[in-house]
Amino acid sequence: MSRAYNFCAGPAALPTAVLEQAQQEILDFQGKGLSIMEMSHRDKVFVDIAEKAEQDLRDLMGISDDYAVLFLQGGASTQFAMVPMNLLGEGETADYINTGQWSKKAIKEAGRYGKINVAASSEDSHFTTVPPQESWKLSANPAYLHYCPNETIGGLEYSFIPEVGETPLVADMSSTILSRPVDVNRFGMIYAGAQKNIGPAGLTLVIIRKDLLGKAGAHVPAMLNYQTHADNGSMYNTPPTYAWYLAGLVFEWLKKQGGVANMAEINQRKAEKLYGFIDGSDFYSNPVEKISRSWMNVPFVLADDALDKTFLAEADAAGLLNLKGHRSVGGMRASIYNAVPEAAVDALIAFMADFEKRNG
Amino acid sequence: MSRAYNFCAGPAALPTAVLEQAQQEILDFQGKGLSIMEMSHRDKVFVDIAEKAEQDLRDLMGISDDYAVLFLQGGASTQFAMVPMNLLGEGETADYINTGQWSKKAIKEAGRYGKINVAASSEDSHFTTVPPQESWKLSANPAYLHYCPNETIGGLEYSFIPEVGETPLVADMSSTILSRPVDVNRFGMIYAGAQKNIGPAGLTLVIIRKDLLGKAGAHVPAMLNYQTHADNGSMYNTPPTYAWYLAGLVFEWLKKQGGVANMAEINQRKAEKLYGFIDGSDFYSNPVEKISRSWMNVPFVLADDALDKTFLAEADAAGLLNLKGHRSVGGMRASIYNAVPEAAVDALIAFMADFEKRNG
Repeated sequence: MSRAYNFCAGPAALPTAVLEQAQQEILDFQGKGLSIMEMSHRDKVFVDIAEKAEQDLRDLMGISDDYAVLFLQGGASTQFAMVPMNLLGEGETADYINTGQWSKKAIKEAGRYGKINVAASSEDSHFTTVPPQESWKLSANPAYLHYCPNETIGGLEYSFIPEVGETPLVADMSSTILSRPVDVNRFGMIYAGAQKNIGPAGLTLVIIRKDLLGKAGAHVPAMLNYQTHADNGSMYNTPPTYAWYLAGLVFEWLKKQGGVANMAEINQRKAEKLYGFIDGSDFYSNPVEKISRSWMNVPFVLADDALDKTFLAEADAAGLLNLKGHRSVGGMRASIYNAVPEAAVDALIAFMADFEKRNG
Repeated sequence: MSRAYNFCAGPAALPTAVLEQAQQEILDFQGKGLSIMEMSHRDKVFVDIAEKAEQDLRDLMGISDDYAVLFLQGGASTQFAMVPMNLLGEGETADYINTGQWSKKAIKEAGRYGKINVAASSEDSHFTTVPPQESWKLSANPAYLHYCPNETIGGLEYSFIPEVGETPLVADMSSTILSRPVDVNRFGMIYAGAQKNIGPAGLTLVIIRKDLLGKAGAHVPAMLNYQTHADNGSMYNTPPTYAWYLAGLVFEWLKKQGGVANMAEINQRKAEKLYGFIDGSDFYSNPVEKISRSWMNVPFVLADDALDKTFLAEADAAGLLNLKGHRSVGGMRASIYNAVPEAAVDALIAFMADFEKRNG
């Protein structure tokens, strides 16, 4: 068994220690004679796992009892529909900020359910900037404001949490959740697909202020109504139990690492090293304005894109996997989530320096 | 490591050989240096796994190119909404047959989206019978007819496939899929949550005749539109990759067992043994009419329900797990899906005989 350094944007690297524990328990969970996968979600053994996972997440993020934490399915793409179906009342308007491809998808989907106001967009800068909040054209009384704090594809991350007064702030945190401390109390709702910083694909976390529950109309499917899941502890139907268990192992691992504050220090150091190296080179470049560079997703291009294929093939051979940029933008992208160790970034920089020396 | 006999109704037993292979590959898939869980769904390695799983399922069930096979999320409960959202046009009526708690849930959810006609119900017999088709009061021109061929809770299984002419037949096969051969061509659509005969919870299979695609209105979420998933090979967004991989291992295992025809022989033998033993006893009983007894879920009660707790505790101690009946009906239930070996049924019968001798 050999583990490479994995820079995949998602489904992304998981901590080796988590996979080792899962491996050990997969056929027989703690002497019970069966796998977690083979157990009813209503079995006390699983219920304990599920509750501990929720509590560990609450501890890690400082989530108060004012919020429900839901373990759902369907990915962020299902949230693009659920948010307006649950929070956008008849005749109301929702504000959206457009800072990249995931924002755009959320905006497009929301358009099916009511009036959407795109209050700001950085499409003119090819999503290399975050529009300053002073420039946002907010509605008079929006049902909520939606934004994507970290755009996985563009590698663009907000350096601030929007100030929106009483308006519920809704954030797609899929690729930034748990990477740094965040004041949950400033949000009406946070959601995240699991497959970047939480666990395997097929699990979606929703953290929603309880006063925002119960607004969905009768036409909303039970499974798409947050109230259904809040009322049933995310067990209205069979949840994705194995993914929930793995997420719990990741939360335990994060606590052992010193929690999110400690991860933030490591993540900042990893990102600064990599951006510092890129900025110090004429061979590599990153287009994003410095203040809005993502700690999690670092896209970069080679000055001569004819070398892209060689770069990727040699990186792969060196055990540096999945550095290809998103198919919609090309170039390279190193996703350096919590589970990607600092040594991986060091190894990447050493490889990039060597590649430049040989090809620059 | 010791593996007990697991009679859980779902999430249910998986083949030990499947879990052993998963265990071996979980940290490093075939020398690639990472887990299947940590890999992009667009990686050729995963795409090959996904395509092979689909092909193996097509081979096992004899699914022609007239049908799309979709690997989705959300469980059968999400299908309860998706079916009418996709197939029930404005002003149309859908027919439903009510044979148990899962039928009822499907009927209740469908009621949000249009006119539902319950064409027959066996609620009067406490769902111990399947209403004969001659008694069904079908609509003049229904958009589809929905039924649940195997009711997991009641242990009731149709002994026939309804004859409905040109009406698309829609079946919730969650707890019977792959347990016996079925002529897919007689169905407009088949769906199944994975956690009984396919793989872990968090994956839902949909097999839909292609001419039924594309009927959803603009108000239907992209993620709840079958067309979206058919157009994108179930990769419109990140699918539950690990569950998909595990389902693929189960399909491979089924092929090695001689396919569904062979499983049907084993399943029939398992069921006949257990029902035969129950019928031969005054101590145990099963209330379902003989022709409609499920091969997969065998509910039974003790003549003296004061003994229930002792029965369950002793069974558990003997390594016969999860025999408690559904919380809504009580008693016992042995779910004997494909992955539950014949030896488990033999062991259960031996235990039941011994328990009767000591307590009868």
